[in-house]
Amino acid sequence: MSKNGVRTERDSFGKLDVPADRYWGAQTQRSLINFPIGGETMPLPVVRALGIVKQGAARANMALDNLDSRIGKAIDQAAQEVIDGKLNNHFPLVVWQTGSGTQSNMNANEVIANRAIEILGGELGSKDPVHPNDHCNRSQSSNDTFPTAMHVAAVEEIHHRLIPSLEHLLKALEQKADAFKDIVKIGRTHLQDATPLTLGQEFSGYVHQIKQSLRRAKAVLPALYQLAQGGTAVGTGINSKPGFAERVAQEIAAITGLPFVTAENKFEALAAHDALVEASGAMNSIAVSLMKIANDIRLLGSGPRCGLGELVLPENEPGSSIMPGKVNPTQCEAMTMVCAQVMGNHVAVSVAGSNGHMELNVYKPVMIYNLLQSIRLLADGARSFTDRCVAGIAANEDRITTLLNESLMLVTALAPTIGYDKATEVAKKAHKSGSTLKEAALSLGYVTAEEFDRVVRPKDMVHPKD
Amino acid sequence: MSKNGVRTERDSFGKLDVPADRYWGAQTQRSLINFPIGGETMPLPVVRALGIVKQGAARANMALDNLDSRIGKAIDQAAQEVIDGKLNNHFPLVVWQTGSGTQSNMNANEVIANRAIEILGGELGSKDPVHPNDHCNRSQSSNDTFPTAMHVAAVEEIHHRLIPSLEHLLKALEQKADAFKDIVKIGRTHLQDATPLTLGQEFSGYVHQIKQSLRRAKAVLPALYQLAQGGTAVGTGINSKPGFAERVAQEIAAITGLPFVTAENKFEALAAHDALVEASGAMNSIAVSLMKIANDIRLLGSGPRCGLGELVLPENEPGSSIMPGKVNPTQCEAMTMVCAQVMGNHVAVSVAGSNGHMELNVYKPVMIYNLLQSIRLLADGARSFTDRCVAGIAANEDRITTLLNESLMLVTALAPTIGYDKATEVAKKAHKSGSTLKEAALSLGYVTAEEFDRVVRPKDMVHPKD
Amino acid sequence: MSKNGVRTERDSFGKLDVPADRYWGAQTQRSLINFPIGGETMPLPVVRALGIVKQGAARANMALDNLDSRIGKAIDQAAQEVIDGKLNNHFPLVVWQTGSGTQSNMNANEVIANRAIEILGGELGSKDPVHPNDHCNRSQSSNDTFPTAMHVAAVEEIHHRLIPSLEHLLKALEQKADAFKDIVKIGRTHLQDATPLTLGQEFSGYVHQIKQSLRRAKAVLPALYQLAQGGTAVGTGINSKPGFAERVAQEIAAITGLPFVTAENKFEALAAHDALVEASGAMNSIAVSLMKIANDIRLLGSGPRCGLGELVLPENEPGSSIMPGKVNPTQCEAMTMVCAQVMGNHVAVSVAGSNGHMELNVYKPVMIYNLLQSIRLLADGARSFTDRCVAGIAANEDRITTLLNESLMLVTALAPTIGYDKATEVAKKAHKSGSTLKEAALSLGYVTAEEFDRVVRPKDMVHPKD
Amino acid sequence: MSKNGVRTERDSFGKLDVPADRYWGAQTQRSLINFPIGGETMPLPVVRALGIVKQGAARANMALDNLDSRIGKAIDQAAQEVIDGKLNNHFPLVVWQTGSGTQSNMNANEVIANRAIEILGGELGSKDPVHPNDHCNRSQSSNDTFPTAMHVAAVEEIHHRLIPSLEHLLKALEQKADAFKDIVKIGRTHLQDATPLTLGQEFSGYVHQIKQSLRRAKAVLPALYQLAQGGTAVGTGINSKPGFAERVAQEIAAITGLPFVTAENKFEALAAHDALVEASGAMNSIAVSLMKIANDIRLLGSGPRCGLGELVLPENEPGSSIMPGKVNPTQCEAMTMVCAQVMGNHVAVSVAGSNGHMELNVYKPVMIYNLLQSIRLLADGARSFTDRCVAGIAANEDRITTLLNESLMLVTALAPTIGYDKATEVAKKAHKSGSTLKEAALSLGYVTAEEFDRVVRPKDMVHPKD
Repeated sequence: MSKNGVRTERDSFGKLDVPADRYWGAQTQRSLINFPIGGETMPLPVVRALGIVKQGAARANMALDNLDSRIGKAIDQAAQEVIDGKLNNHFPLVVWQTGSGTQSNMNANEVIANRAIEILGGELGSKDPVHPNDHCNRSQSSNDTFPTAMHVAAVEEIHHRLIPSLEHLLKALEQKADAFKDIVKIGRTHLQDATPLTLGQEFSGYVHQIKQSLRRAKAVLPALYQLAQGGTAVGTGINSKPGFAERVAQEIAAITGLPFVTAENKFEALAAHDALVEASGAMNSIAVSLMKIANDIRLLGSGPRCGLGELVLPENEPGSSIMPGKVNPTQCEAMTMVCAQVMGNHVAVSVAGSNGHMELNVYKPVMIYNLLQSIRLLADGARSFTDRCVAGIAANEDRITTLLNESLMLVTALAPTIGYDKATEVAKKAHKSGSTLKEAALSLGYVTAEEFDRVVRPKDMVHPKD
Repeated sequence: MSKNGVRTERDSFGKLDVPADRYWGAQTQRSLINFPIGGETMPLPVVRALGIVKQGAARANMALDNLDSRIGKAIDQAAQEVIDGKLNNHFPLVVWQTGSGTQSNMNANEVIANRAIEILGGELGSKDPVHPNDHCNRSQSSNDTFPTAMHVAAVEEIHHRLIPSLEHLLKALEQKADAFKDIVKIGRTHLQDATPLTLGQEFSGYVHQIKQSLRRAKAVLPALYQLAQGGTAVGTGINSKPGFAERVAQEIAAITGLPFVTAENKFEALAAHDALVEASGAMNSIAVSLMKIANDIRLLGSGPRCGLGELVLPENEPGSSIMPGKVNPTQCEAMTMVCAQVMGNHVAVSVAGSNGHMELNVYKPVMIYNLLQSIRLLADGARSFTDRCVAGIAANEDRITTLLNESLMLVTALAPTIGYDKATEVAKKAHKSGSTLKEAALSLGYVTAEEFDRVVRPKDMVHPKD
Repeated sequence: MSKNGVRTERDSFGKLDVPADRYWGAQTQRSLINFPIGGETMPLPVVRALGIVKQGAARANMALDNLDSRIGKAIDQAAQEVIDGKLNNHFPLVVWQTGSGTQSNMNANEVIANRAIEILGGELGSKDPVHPNDHCNRSQSSNDTFPTAMHVAAVEEIHHRLIPSLEHLLKALEQKADAFKDIVKIGRTHLQDATPLTLGQEFSGYVHQIKQSLRRAKAVLPALYQLAQGGTAVGTGINSKPGFAERVAQEIAAITGLPFVTAENKFEALAAHDALVEASGAMNSIAVSLMKIANDIRLLGSGPRCGLGELVLPENEPGSSIMPGKVNPTQCEAMTMVCAQVMGNHVAVSVAGSNGHMELNVYKPVMIYNLLQSIRLLADGARSFTDRCVAGIAANEDRITTLLNESLMLVTALAPTIGYDKATEVAKKAHKSGSTLKEAALSLGYVTAEEFDRVVRPKDMVHPKD
Repeated sequence: MSKNGVRTERDSFGKLDVPADRYWGAQTQRSLINFPIGGETMPLPVVRALGIVKQGAARANMALDNLDSRIGKAIDQAAQEVIDGKLNNHFPLVVWQTGSGTQSNMNANEVIANRAIEILGGELGSKDPVHPNDHCNRSQSSNDTFPTAMHVAAVEEIHHRLIPSLEHLLKALEQKADAFKDIVKIGRTHLQDATPLTLGQEFSGYVHQIKQSLRRAKAVLPALYQLAQGGTAVGTGINSKPGFAERVAQEIAAITGLPFVTAENKFEALAAHDALVEASGAMNSIAVSLMKIANDIRLLGSGPRCGLGELVLPENEPGSSIMPGKVNPTQCEAMTMVCAQVMGNHVAVSVAGSNGHMELNVYKPVMIYNLLQSIRLLADGARSFTDRCVAGIAANEDRITTLLNESLMLVTALAPTIGYDKATEVAKKAHKSGSTLKEAALSLGYVTAEEFDRVVRPKDMVHPKD
């Protein structure tokens, strides 16, 4: 019964008032009171995943004749509402709670129990006919439920958000690599002028980085497909029926359409979260790749008049509150900020992952919070970077050609003919005197004008040659 | 004019519709459109700090006869509303925007301009009589404004949130160190039994760590007191009046009651954010300290029957969804999760800080986001840990005494008398045979019973002795 | 000619004296002079790998009719001596040199050229008949040679050192998991007593972690098998013959017996080292796993009288300079120190990897130095930990049984029978009164003695049950 | 007695052969056997510091009448030889040993004992008349000795190596800032053209960063001056005399000439190494600063013909094995590689520092190894960078002036006169049409030619203006 906008709920510690318009119960409320830390709430993909787990568990229990089907179906229906995001504002807990995620698991149990009670015409808070622990959590412990939810959330986000975003970027880069394939430009190593390559070749390096990023993102999935569910309290499966672990994994696979399986070893699945560390490591690698690409693009697009100026980047918004007309490579900046964040998140995940004790790692919420943030930011960042920067990049061909023809490193083409040492002399002479390479080469008498023109052709310097 | 719930605003890129009930203008709206990345909005302490900066700048400009006082006063009033948090929902931008924070600076300019226009009876979006750039941003650039806001926000949070919280924890630890000062217990090094100390001495180590944490938190303030404001676009102060930099720092000091000063070198203040890296480093050190303390407390409180069991921790909530009656050291867990986060954030800040280019570091939003999160989490975490764990810790004296008397490392007291090698023999004999030290010592004939009892007294082993 | 113990060598910057008893030339000597930084020399696996690359390149050039066979064979022979480690003291350069590794590549070119000259009866330093650039470096640039050497070194170390070491640890853990399979013990979650499991189950979690570690170590190899060689200066293959890239990869595969191939994209292979970042990420994951395992083992072995004391660890050496008879879990300590190092190294590698510019990443030496240190330390650390700790672990069965029987969390077995709430009451009553669970359960009247004894049987609580 | 090149030594675990020409004893030998991990030996500054501690302790013990003076003086003399580096090859142990550093402490005890025995005419290995534990380690434990040595080593290295090196760099940068003070150049924000500044102003930012780096380096010293010595086994000072702690700190201060004091709290000094984490944090900040500076310098020096080309960097060595005449900013590269290493080391130190347990942190060797490497590399790196790069930097004034005059951002000077919006129009028109700013301004009719020339003067845009 509720009055004054509150309803009384109870747990083993006693009674507590909760807001009457919320489904959560005493343990959720107690967590709200006990953890007034920061404001980062449990990521929504985890909330959704808890709904998936509760639905899957109810179905598995029913299939194993371990749950009354009237109760089971009400749980199933309530869990579906969690999955659909309809009850998001009934999940108020922060990340900085118990390290097992028990309170978020109980939050799911309480919300689903009360909603199921409502569906069945019972009284909220009565735990009758649906009990948060005895029914919603049946055959489960937070210790296997929360890791299962972590894996489900991470997989869904990688699958549905990150991979499509990287594929989108890949396609845009491939288009540029193709469009730029005949533009010969100066190469730069050590930020110093080097031998030429095509702009398309330069972009092909980015293409390869993103192809590999996709491979890295996909490679972490198999370990994440393994679900802890069925391990219950310490990995033994106490208080679950034989076959429950396999069945619940099947149900979750069916609900999500993703190939989840029961974990090979449940003790590891509770006590360590190496699969999350591994996944975070892939995010770190992807961030490293994206930082290189975004950095290159803003360097090549630097200017408009006092930079390298080889690329023209899309102009999306005014760039300065004081300098009129200024336009900046802001998508590159957002992208590289995301990369720095992901690199930091990876350390948080690694530190947390290394600190498990015996049968349970109690850094679960901070691990999944960081991993999901990394996935989300990389996905959103890469998509925005693609649409508002990469897709609109144009080559400044005049500038590219001007720079190319000035370079002294075209001398490299002479080395096979006159040897490294004499070619060095030519380059040094041109550098010191400010002359062209050809002038320097002729004045030193190492080649004839004809030879020079035949050998030193940038267009012929962008591939091996017989 | 607004219709259909929108109002048309414009910037140099053209017109844009914005929600009619929001004060922001075209540049803010453009940022909203261009950066659909993650969901982390600019931290509220930065929004407040932008209000402080705009108010301070308006006052400084008026003082230097560089701003019409009717306009200046309206800006002042509008900025006060930003400071007071009344306009928080007019600051919708995410962290992952331009790396200079220009868009959040323009958000402040636009909101304050429109609110000032409203105060003065003008039309929203007209930029008349108050222009976001020409008036609100007068004598400023995002390049000095945003760093100034970063410093103001960091200082306020360290001052008003972190330091009081650490002082609160310090006091609680001091009380425990005092209360436990006569309880002699076994020491543990390498997690192995060692010579005794008092529980009060053990807690005095934590006291010292937090005293030093306070010193570290305070030590980063002087560099943060230095404000970039007055450097404008690249550090030169272009488009500002002589004396503006000093005056605006005075105004900000007056508004905040904190000893801000103008930065010694404005070029560094825009191009690098080493002061933020330094501050983040202090947060990292504090996290390292807190992780040690929280870890020790949960180890000493492990049990209740199969752990070390020397401490009894407060029981705050049910600990398990499956194991009835289980209670866990959840405050230690929240605290250590916070520490892992802070250690990761520090890497993000360091990577971002190292990547500035020429006259501007363009990782500003990600740096301040991480630093403020670290400060907030440490402050909130330490306070909750104090109130719900440390303050309620009790010593399990029976358990402590039982363990103490079993320890073989009391043999150390014999070493000055019989030498290290013979003392080793005694300990090894007792260890192998399962006997007491005294039995072993007597059977080896190295001491008499009287000598043993005189020398091996735990109470006398907790300080130097003549 | 040498006199006074020195020989004069020259490069394009002029003449320089080098020690007469060393094969290196002017560029190596110049690097020695110009980089007096730290003392960390280029790791020997890189030196060996440079020998492999030079040998492979000479063979490929000869096969493509691009190198006189008399010169080629002398280079081949000299390179073999580098591979065999016979010339290690001719590679004096430190890690902190040019970021391309050019100086170490030239070190290899110079040493091999002079040794080949010697073989052919020429004069050291004459560059005749073997020139370090024109012959030893033919068809190569440092920009492809050094990355190739990095990959070869990393692969060889992972293959020949890390994987066997992890397999060794895996076997020892499997043996323990098997030997301990019937020992029922208390589980611990949150460091608090939980439901039981077998010691073998606990170790099976470690087994799974190392199995996965092996999978992670192997998963990084395919990207490392891809060799940059053939990209030459900027990835285009300038100054190399068509087919050289493929041929040199074949030669290197033949020399090493490992399945190296030419890189799919040479531009990426020079400009980014994401494959090294990925490999370092695997080392980080492995470190996280090993830290958990080593930490658990020292916690479970804590004591001997005042800790958990469930495991008895091998005693390898005296543990204290002051406490006679003290023995410590030093192998766990060395192992976890290694893990901390690897986690730090990974950040160094990631920062370095993210900072490439255009056609070249110039953090090559620091990247390979850290990766190789991580591989070596994990391999050596895991092997020592296996041989001197894991292999000798014994279970203290008396202690294990004593603790198990005291645990209150056996109450969990009652929950399916009497419900979570009543089971909680039982546990709380026993905890408060210090009684046994059975006493509490009976006094509350929730079960009969017979029921209790039938349900609460630790041995039956370590697996799912119908 | 030694034969066959070995001598028999013994400890409580039994007899062991050691090389006859080495002073170490059984515990050192046992560590060599038990820790075949990596090859990183204990840093020499720690070896030296152990000599200082042993000498200081012997002197303090003698002063307190707690050590026979004949023995004490022999220890003093032997310790001096350790301090002087004469016995460095008697310290063979690796970093990856016991986490307390006990084995390195015993290495010092054994070497000094045997050398002192030799001085006194005794037999090596006899422990008579000088016993490694009873005399060399008198009043000490590894648990206070090793932390003391860590602090002494870190302080000496910061004092004698890092600070002078940073001062050296500071001076060179100040000279450049002064030399370049009248060279007006284009500013760059977001890597895009911005308003002008002088090259001297740009360098003044670097000057400020290094000034602050010096402040940061010095600020960590007070916590490092605090010495653990006197805490003995667990911080209580067991087996030491009253006054020993203070006296030994005085002796160490006298030996080193540095203001060491006894630690305020010995429990913290053994159980946590927050002072090392703090010091490492300062190294991280300094690395971040140096990375920015070195990066800027190579960007500004990029070219010679296709980059920014504003700075001319010293040419120190040939830069390419394939591109003749190429010269690279190799000192910047070594410097930034060092910075990446230091950033990684800091994570290793932080992870290690956070993982102490109860009375002892057992990550001591890995912490001091990383901190000392960071100090050394920053010191050496900064010195080399100063001498071989910064000191020789020249401005390319022609190039600087050419770029400056092309910049569109000079339009900023018009904004106070014609307003931000019209100034934007001018800049955009010039950008689109490729015209000069002046042409665009005049064609739009916003200013006269005279006004333009009066207002848009780069030289007047580098400071505030009335």
